[in-house]
Amino acid sequence: MENKAGTKPPHHVVIVGGGFGGLYTAKALNSKDINVTLIDKRNFHLFQPLLYQVATGTLSPADISSPLRSVLNKSKNTKVLLGEVSDIDPEKQNVMMGGEKIPYDSLIIATGAKHSYFGKDEWEEYAPGLKTVEDAIEMRRRIFMAFEAAEQETDEEKRRALLTFVVVGGGPTGVELAGAIAELAYGILKEDFRNIDTSETQVMLLEGMDRVLPPFAPELSAKAQKSLEDLGVSVVTKTLVTGIEGDIVTIKQGDESKQFGARTVLWAAGVKASPLGKAIAEKTGSETDRAGRVIVEPDLSLKGYPNIYVIGDLAHFAHQTGRPLPGVAPVAMQEGQYVAKSIKQQLKGNTIPPFQYFDKGSLAVIGQHAAVVDLGFMKLTGFVAWLFWLLIHVYYLVEFDNKLVVMIQWVWNYFTRNRGARLITGKDLPAPVEVNSKPDYYPAVNNNKTVNV
Amino acid sequence: MENKAGTKPPHHVVIVGGGFGGLYTAKALNSKDINVTLIDKRNFHLFQPLLYQVATGTLSPADISSPLRSVLNKSKNTKVLLGEVSDIDPEKQNVMMGGEKIPYDSLIIATGAKHSYFGKDEWEEYAPGLKTVEDAIEMRRRIFMAFEAAEQETDEEKRRALLTFVVVGGGPTGVELAGAIAELAYGILKEDFRNIDTSETQVMLLEGMDRVLPPFAPELSAKAQKSLEDLGVSVVTKTLVTGIEGDIVTIKQGDESKQFGARTVLWAAGVKASPLGKAIAEKTGSETDRAGRVIVEPDLSLKGYPNIYVIGDLAHFAHQTGRPLPGVAPVAMQEGQYVAKSIKQQLKGNTIPPFQYFDKGSLAVIGQHAAVVDLGFMKLTGFVAWLFWLLIHVYYLVEFDNKLVVMIQWVWNYFTRNRGARLITGKDLPAPVEVNSKPDYYPAVNNNKTVNV
Repeated sequence: MENKAGTKPPHHVVIVGGGFGGLYTAKALNSKDINVTLIDKRNFHLFQPLLYQVATGTLSPADISSPLRSVLNKSKNTKVLLGEVSDIDPEKQNVMMGGEKIPYDSLIIATGAKHSYFGKDEWEEYAPGLKTVEDAIEMRRRIFMAFEAAEQETDEEKRRALLTFVVVGGGPTGVELAGAIAELAYGILKEDFRNIDTSETQVMLLEGMDRVLPPFAPELSAKAQKSLEDLGVSVVTKTLVTGIEGDIVTIKQGDESKQFGARTVLWAAGVKASPLGKAIAEKTGSETDRAGRVIVEPDLSLKGYPNIYVIGDLAHFAHQTGRPLPGVAPVAMQEGQYVAKSIKQQLKGNTIPPFQYFDKGSLAVIGQHAAVVDLGFMKLTGFVAWLFWLLIHVYYLVEFDNKLVVMIQWVWNYFTRNRGARLITGKDLPAPVEVNSKPDYYPAVNNNKTVNV
Repeated sequence: MENKAGTKPPHHVVIVGGGFGGLYTAKALNSKDINVTLIDKRNFHLFQPLLYQVATGTLSPADISSPLRSVLNKSKNTKVLLGEVSDIDPEKQNVMMGGEKIPYDSLIIATGAKHSYFGKDEWEEYAPGLKTVEDAIEMRRRIFMAFEAAEQETDEEKRRALLTFVVVGGGPTGVELAGAIAELAYGILKEDFRNIDTSETQVMLLEGMDRVLPPFAPELSAKAQKSLEDLGVSVVTKTLVTGIEGDIVTIKQGDESKQFGARTVLWAAGVKASPLGKAIAEKTGSETDRAGRVIVEPDLSLKGYPNIYVIGDLAHFAHQTGRPLPGVAPVAMQEGQYVAKSIKQQLKGNTIPPFQYFDKGSLAVIGQHAAVVDLGFMKLTGFVAWLFWLLIHVYYLVEFDNKLVVMIQWVWNYFTRNRGARLITGKDLPAPVEVNSKPDYYPAVNNNKTVNV
């Protein structure tokens, strides 16, 4: 289409989702020949890799959030809209947002994933997951409320259940959560209570496979387990959770079922793709995998729809290794940059080779002073790995708005451990009376069945 | 009562409320002859004077919160309990908390005040006040959502209402809120939007009396008004709010009523005492004033109950000047310290003279670089006053846990304006569809009736 002056109107790219994938696409599309509309239901980009530090009272949500408008305010070709995309019409080339049709020339869907309970959605009430700021605040509330309730509990068994923290899932998030809770219980909080000794706290990390951090090299898994145990975490592998109800967790080890009492159960075990994936797959005849991720072409587009791309945690890209790429920030970032480059080159009449993920390695942090880093050609553990982890995170945090101040502030918060971040807040504060109540439904903890950890 | 060894058990002081009054009492009672139990329904002390900075997206809640357990963890004689006191028995000398009786020898009630709508409680829905962290998060959500909705609004009148912010009440909180919103609209956010020009925002500060900051000297009120106007705030005095409903604010100026559209109305106009005040007054035969504050004796105790004290915003102490002392932090702090000293001296058989408030002055800040300070013998305005304001706040923030780090972090956050703190969060996020909806109930803005400001 040509306008009055005989020049083409700018190519309009709509990006749905302001996570790593969407944001890096938008930043890379900064060009006067392209108009970009970025739609997100939140007004900020969240640095999810550090969300566990909000959940455990070290950082504030604002420390790991960047307003999308600020990050993109120098990209004058980019408009940010706060809203939720309810539908997509791939034939007429528009997306529906709050009753309004927004037309696109190219569409990038990057709405990510949320946690999944493998069909046991009723567990969510007892075992919250960690994907949003609200999730983190809720975890923080539960963790610190458990210590508060234990301080007031006179029944020994109930107190033991209150001081038992179970993290389900031994991936990076689970490892990071378990390590941070152990540091709280055995270090940071130890002077704070008068009736309880927080060193009696039990922190359990449950993993179904035979080792934590399954994607890492086995020797790193072993190192991570050792570091966790040094912090006081009980690492329990080859263990499946088969029930979570009230304060009772049921697990299965081989053929044996066991039960134990635990007030605080945190979920770090599985994810499923955002529902927009299924919607676009149905409309375009694309396939989805078991987790709801959309199977994409080698250039990250959808079959038959070369102007629709799916990237990040929502995409199932298996062209490189035969297995889908993992749902981590570097994959999303590289996919976003690839799609941006591809669109720019297409506008010049060029095509670029298929997407190739360059795996720079994996890393997970264990407490304040240890980590494991798997770079493929090199493996790091302990304090050196932790320093490496810190540098990488600081580097990518800074990229958001290219400001030294954010980096310094964050490092400062990290080292000084913003003490106020332990505050218990929320609209639905538990009635303080409940904290001290001794409800009838509270099941007896059968210590004979307690896992020996 | 004597115990087996023939020595007296320690005197037990129960403090209800961990605000400035309760916390300063507890800190001053650090003595091995006294056991202290501090009860609060939150697990943190909140530095309320800076709450407006959370509401306007400069600081995080954690920056102005200190966990009570951390602040008091060196006071080994002090136990902190999270819970709500539901009843007090002044004859049997115990307080009820969650079904449990806690006996006391001395009792200090310092549960403060919340905002009051002068009987118009239905206004709370449209015009939230600012007393808790949750209040601040809600204000922040409303302020930033208004800009987001304006960006998507195509109807000019509705957009004008979305970009109209009304602060009700010209005391320090109102002045601080209005100044901070003006700085957001005319400075910080001005590059962030594509459809709206945030400089078209209108920020109105409504005050019933003939000047803002009525407790200050008139020349400081004039200076404050000038500073606010320089920032772009419309200061409207001698104006009463008579209606707030939906997006319509009704005001009365003299005999004339006017209406105008404003999506965001913030309440900084009045407070009423916490309900525990009325409860204890009824049980002890004490009187309360119109705001529900308990009228106390010259030593801050209740008539006929020399071991029960009421301090801080909950107390009506008029023995010094004939008028009640204002509900500000320095009054609560000095009262707490007085009561602690009084109890300690009584245990030694001594009495001390009646409480005397030493008024060090009043201060209010207007935006990032101006303030007014009234020290009685000296009045400061502008940047010098702002520096003074900063020093005072830093000093008292630091007192909480005597750590340099908190001070540096806070000053750092203040100067760099933690950008992430602009995040819109909350369990009950407004459905993004609503943001863009054009509800039928939306009343037409009658510009003929708009106040000429």
